[in-house]
Amino acid sequence: MLRYGLIGANGKMGREIESYFSSFGDVCVFKKDVGLIEEHDTPQVIIDFSSPDAVAETVAICEKFNSALVIGTTALDESHFEMLQNLSESVPVVQSYNFSTGIAILKKMLKEYSHYFDNWDGAMVEIHHNQKKDAPSGTAKMLKSAMNRGLPISSIRVGGVFGEHTVIFSNAGETIEITHRALSRRAFTIGVRNAALFALGKQNGYYTYDDVLESLNEIL
Amino acid sequence: MLRYGLIGANGKMGREIESYFSSFGDVCVFKKDVGLIEEHDTPQVIIDFSSPDAVAETVAICEKFNSALVIGTTALDESHFEMLQNLSESVPVVQSYNFSTGIAILKKMLKEYSHYFDNWDGAMVEIHHNQKKDAPSGTAKMLKSAMNRGLPISSIRVGGVFGEHTVIFSNAGETIEITHRALSRRAFTIGVRNAALFALGKQNGYYTYDDVLESLNEIL
Amino acid sequence: MLRYGLIGANGKMGREIESYFSSFGDVCVFKKDVGLIEEHDTPQVIIDFSSPDAVAETVAICEKFNSALVIGTTALDESHFEMLQNLSESVPVVQSYNFSTGIAILKKMLKEYSHYFDNWDGAMVEIHHNQKKDAPSGTAKMLKSAMNRGLPISSIRVGGVFGEHTVIFSNAGETIEITHRALSRRAFTIGVRNAALFALGKQNGYYTYDDVLESLNEIL
Amino acid sequence: MLRYGLIGANGKMGREIESYFSSFGDVCVFKKDVGLIEEHDTPQVIIDFSSPDAVAETVAICEKFNSALVIGTTALDESHFEMLQNLSESVPVVQSYNFSTGIAILKKMLKEYSHYFDNWDGAMVEIHHNQKKDAPSGTAKMLKSAMNRGLPISSIRVGGVFGEHTVIFSNAGETIEITHRALSRRAFTIGVRNAALFALGKQNGYYTYDDVLESLNEIL
Repeated sequence: MLRYGLIGANGKMGREIESYFSSFGDVCVFKKDVGLIEEHDTPQVIIDFSSPDAVAETVAICEKFNSALVIGTTALDESHFEMLQNLSESVPVVQSYNFSTGIAILKKMLKEYSHYFDNWDGAMVEIHHNQKKDAPSGTAKMLKSAMNRGLPISSIRVGGVFGEHTVIFSNAGETIEITHRALSRRAFTIGVRNAALFALGKQNGYYTYDDVLESLNEIL
Repeated sequence: MLRYGLIGANGKMGREIESYFSSFGDVCVFKKDVGLIEEHDTPQVIIDFSSPDAVAETVAICEKFNSALVIGTTALDESHFEMLQNLSESVPVVQSYNFSTGIAILKKMLKEYSHYFDNWDGAMVEIHHNQKKDAPSGTAKMLKSAMNRGLPISSIRVGGVFGEHTVIFSNAGETIEITHRALSRRAFTIGVRNAALFALGKQNGYYTYDDVLESLNEIL
Repeated sequence: MLRYGLIGANGKMGREIESYFSSFGDVCVFKKDVGLIEEHDTPQVIIDFSSPDAVAETVAICEKFNSALVIGTTALDESHFEMLQNLSESVPVVQSYNFSTGIAILKKMLKEYSHYFDNWDGAMVEIHHNQKKDAPSGTAKMLKSAMNRGLPISSIRVGGVFGEHTVIFSNAGETIEITHRALSRRAFTIGVRNAALFALGKQNGYYTYDDVLESLNEIL
Repeated sequence: MLRYGLIGANGKMGREIESYFSSFGDVCVFKKDVGLIEEHDTPQVIIDFSSPDAVAETVAICEKFNSALVIGTTALDESHFEMLQNLSESVPVVQSYNFSTGIAILKKMLKEYSHYFDNWDGAMVEIHHNQKKDAPSGTAKMLKSAMNRGLPISSIRVGGVFGEHTVIFSNAGETIEITHRALSRRAFTIGVRNAALFALGKQNGYYTYDDVLESLNEIL
């Protein structure tokens, strides 16, 4: 049972996190959003999925409560990373752009296995809903850079597909396809809770979800 | 049991056709290729998977034997179609660029069903081996033109994939994917034999594989 | 803009329907659930995704308001169907166990096209989350019975997969796979609204979602 | 350029091996099959894809020529393994039931990564042509035993599918699917040549295709 705080509590991720965490009996003891502050108790960990503008204040809140931080805010710049690094000297900080366990596994797989496919052709296909603006997806680019090779990426934007990434390797006689499919925001809220549990076991330090992945069997 | 003739007998399709037909006890009674002519008996049907240059002579051979023609030669021009049309007044002619039954079914499906997807997004992905020069594939373009709609096509060229076409439709809540996969040249030789059997039941006329498809349950 | 009533307003489908309909400006003017009745205005159509026990009262409500009915309640018996048939003499009734447009399209496709696959082998794979109790799924059985053939069905129960049905046809040289994937309850709420719009264009009569499908291009 | 010998030279694998090897300029200097012996030169490596009955004589041939052995014969018993072990003291022996590089990679992946999926559900689907007698496939069983977990396996037998294995992992929010598809016997002949090249770099010893996999980047 966690006592946690939520920055961006009214956003889509904020509400999903609260809904998922409450299924474990966790209690949200601190909430912040535009025009909203609620403080009921001291949070063990602060969770922030809001905007870069909020980082400075989030850091101050963690310092005040001496609480860990799990932050998934995107589009951070150098100054934000510096603030988070400083904070990580006193409390544990888990920062990632993607809290999906499956994507973390896939990235690791591609990094460790792509050399076996040196003599195979490769390609990537990523499919997302028609509201997604960027192509290729940030995740596709991250997966590609985990491999020590070039690779064409086809981006497809259709309907309501939440997020699908497929890596294809093929030689003259066989094909291996690895597909990750995020079914819903649940893909990320599970990872956020994993990160929070991971952080509670640390004194301080700067971590990413890759570190959380390696500790999953101890946490769960 | 068919008695058939083979133009382009030493090409890849020629040899596959002979191998497949012989498994039914069919006999190749006439063979032609560069530097090769064999005539053992009167063929009921001539099969030509060679080159546009051969069309005139193939037509003359059909006239001489009064035999049906199944022709899968690609890159025909107006003059070739005229010769074939003329021939079809006296014997049955089945002409198609693709003798895959599955592709014929898929084309018909897309033609008849695409209006149900008017409010869905669509996309096509086609995957072929790395030796294929054109993109999108001729089949992808044919499938697209069977639908009454635009559709982006992603072409992937990897390894030894024989030929794979996937059409994806998606709306906000669901997805339908239809994939055709040709496993080997066998996809085409089956269709060639279907076309030959179909032709034997006709007096004359110009047909495509779409006509063969509609008669399959009578032939087989 | 619809004025509609909702039976089972607090259930998962009820809340999803209200959320989806409101994005079109539709107004829920009548609500009923255990311990709840709200009546603000006369609904044009009543939507019921609750339980068989509620059917008799739902029918009475439709009669009182002279409103159409869209009903997706499962496990109805003969007596329920009789009540709905009687009601359909005075108002339009759309009854279906599955309001997914994609599943309705797939069912029609399989019904109309399975004879083309008479000489192909067939199989079905359906994948659902690990909470699903029945196997094969009701949808898999419905799809199978739409085809004029036998077909083995493999049922896989893993994680949080919302609902996936794949029909595979294969002959010696090629394969066609058709996959329907429901991404979320949205697959059904879209269909429910289609059915409501369809019903508003009718005087009376008993309809299923198959009828709605055939009118989609007129409605939307 | 290899000088190799072929036991079972007239079988399907034998002819495929000869066809594939010849595309590299390799020369088959020794051939054996029922009623056939050809000896043109001393082979560097003997390749045997025939039957268990042939093992004793194959071992004698390797000893006579002091040549390496690559053996893919299935259904070996203890006595055969003992003969091969003895031979491996003087020459390199590569023995495997499956020479597909992709399957070797997949097996290693599953072995090393399955613990990351401890909290996910798992399932396997394998699809093969309708002539395949055993189910699940030997490869499916091998892949399953590489993982430290139970896993239901669905076996589908349709048409001419050469061989397809899919492992699915799913939790409440995401899914990872890994599919290996053998496109043709080429999947194996590539591996056989890899194994032959690997063996030429060794003095002696008993190896499997897993060892070949780890040396691929040095060989190729």
